[in-house]
Amino acid sequence: MSHAAAQASIGDSEFDRDTTITARADEPGVYDADLSAGWTIITAVNGGYLLALVGRALSAALPHPDPFTVSAHYLSASVPGPAVVRTEVVRIGRTLSTGQASLFQYDENGAETERIRVLASYGDLAALPDEVRTTARPPAMPAYEDCLGPEAGPAPIPGSSAIVDRLRLRLDPATAGWALGAPSGKGEMRAWFELADGRDADPLSLLLAVDALPPTAFDLGLRGWTPTVELTAHVRRRPAPGPLRVSITTRNLAGGFLEEDAEVWDTAGRLVAQSRQLARAPRTS
Amino acid sequence: MSHAAAQASIGDSEFDRDTTITARADEPGVYDADLSAGWTIITAVNGGYLLALVGRALSAALPHPDPFTVSAHYLSASVPGPAVVRTEVVRIGRTLSTGQASLFQYDENGAETERIRVLASYGDLAALPDEVRTTARPPAMPAYEDCLGPEAGPAPIPGSSAIVDRLRLRLDPATAGWALGAPSGKGEMRAWFELADGRDADPLSLLLAVDALPPTAFDLGLRGWTPTVELTAHVRRRPAPGPLRVSITTRNLAGGFLEEDAEVWDTAGRLVAQSRQLARAPRTS
Repeated sequence: MSHAAAQASIGDSEFDRDTTITARADEPGVYDADLSAGWTIITAVNGGYLLALVGRALSAALPHPDPFTVSAHYLSASVPGPAVVRTEVVRIGRTLSTGQASLFQYDENGAETERIRVLASYGDLAALPDEVRTTARPPAMPAYEDCLGPEAGPAPIPGSSAIVDRLRLRLDPATAGWALGAPSGKGEMRAWFELADGRDADPLSLLLAVDALPPTAFDLGLRGWTPTVELTAHVRRRPAPGPLRVSITTRNLAGGFLEEDAEVWDTAGRLVAQSRQLARAPRTS
Repeated sequence: MSHAAAQASIGDSEFDRDTTITARADEPGVYDADLSAGWTIITAVNGGYLLALVGRALSAALPHPDPFTVSAHYLSASVPGPAVVRTEVVRIGRTLSTGQASLFQYDENGAETERIRVLASYGDLAALPDEVRTTARPPAMPAYEDCLGPEAGPAPIPGSSAIVDRLRLRLDPATAGWALGAPSGKGEMRAWFELADGRDADPLSLLLAVDALPPTAFDLGLRGWTPTVELTAHVRRRPAPGPLRVSITTRNLAGGFLEEDAEVWDTAGRLVAQSRQLARAPRTS
């Protein structure tokens, strides 16, 4: 598969620049950030991007580098602009440490408003044994070349969404019917996922990948917002270079809520991340 | 199916008595509790019981009654005896409110040691529309009468486990082979689940139900502890009376960790709860 000539790298990419955190010299565990307008869907900042940014702050605050399990409750809608992440070290263990973080933005009077609160346990993926005993199989989906990039059809989401330019998503045609008015009704979404500037995936970008595809509600024939109430992601392995396969499934739309289960597979055929979120179902059908 | 003559009821049962919380008059949002020795596996207090007790404290602290999504990170092993739950109201919204809670016990010097930290969003299950649009199907398992109660075989876990007397678990024979030395290797566990005193299920007891079956690791042929790192449960509907069907699956045992996905179905054929946990895999095989 062909990539753009200029490959960005981990540490020097759009994703890294836009998740930059700056430690306050006088307040340990507090980090300033600037939410980029580059990761928005219409006007809303993508929840996976927020999770990655908060995840970076926790990685700085905790003695272990990698998110193993991250639980986020979304409290209010983030907007591009200044933000502050306040972290707390909850427990430090030998192989795992646990931390908490809240991302705040400022209201018109300068008061802090909490956007997202996170509990997370971190470890060191490089220290894990290579043992794998899994019955999980990669999602059945066509080869990269046979999936649909943005050039293949109409804009998937009406309106201007900056995040479309930051990602290189190629949708499985079987889960892209909604873009042509023919959703499958199964509640599935599958895509090859890369960052548009060619930066390889790492544990932090996996936190973006689990929440960056079009919502499964589209494949159920529903339009409108699917705001996340809570999302928990497990990162199970450092991903191999190359495009990821992301598969998202909704089985239970009931009572005005739905779950979205995501799996992320790397080019080595390893399940590198799993996530589940509870979201509000769109009100219109 | 037949039940013991004396049926306990919601509010007057072993489960209710053992999850009793007492608000401190002088400290708003702080609740004293006593962890019962009745819900232990050998010496460890069951994680689902802890989650239900913390869930009861959050239900008291928040304006909405029912746990919709509860994320718990387990920090240290709880023991029977006194405990205190400290809650914080994070956000109050119209249909959902979010809270945080920590359960502490006391070390030999009387200092508080944190056992579990929880982030949760609560709502009102009774206020949800009855709409269901789901592709999920109940687990394929034999009828209640054809599953295996404790009288059918050897004690599933060596040693004395008080929790066995508090639950009426009937295992699907297909996932009970490990008790006879013949695990299926699939990483599945299915059972009919009731409280032993006949108390019907409610949203709080669902938090127990998602973490009360023998670990799927047993069905993978592994013995030993599977300590939970993090568990997130979604309660989707108030359960109908009668025994629940609980199905737990592990797909990815890798790098010394595994996930356990649980589904809980009620007698009305509704998916009432889903959960996923990340746990450490047993060290011995």
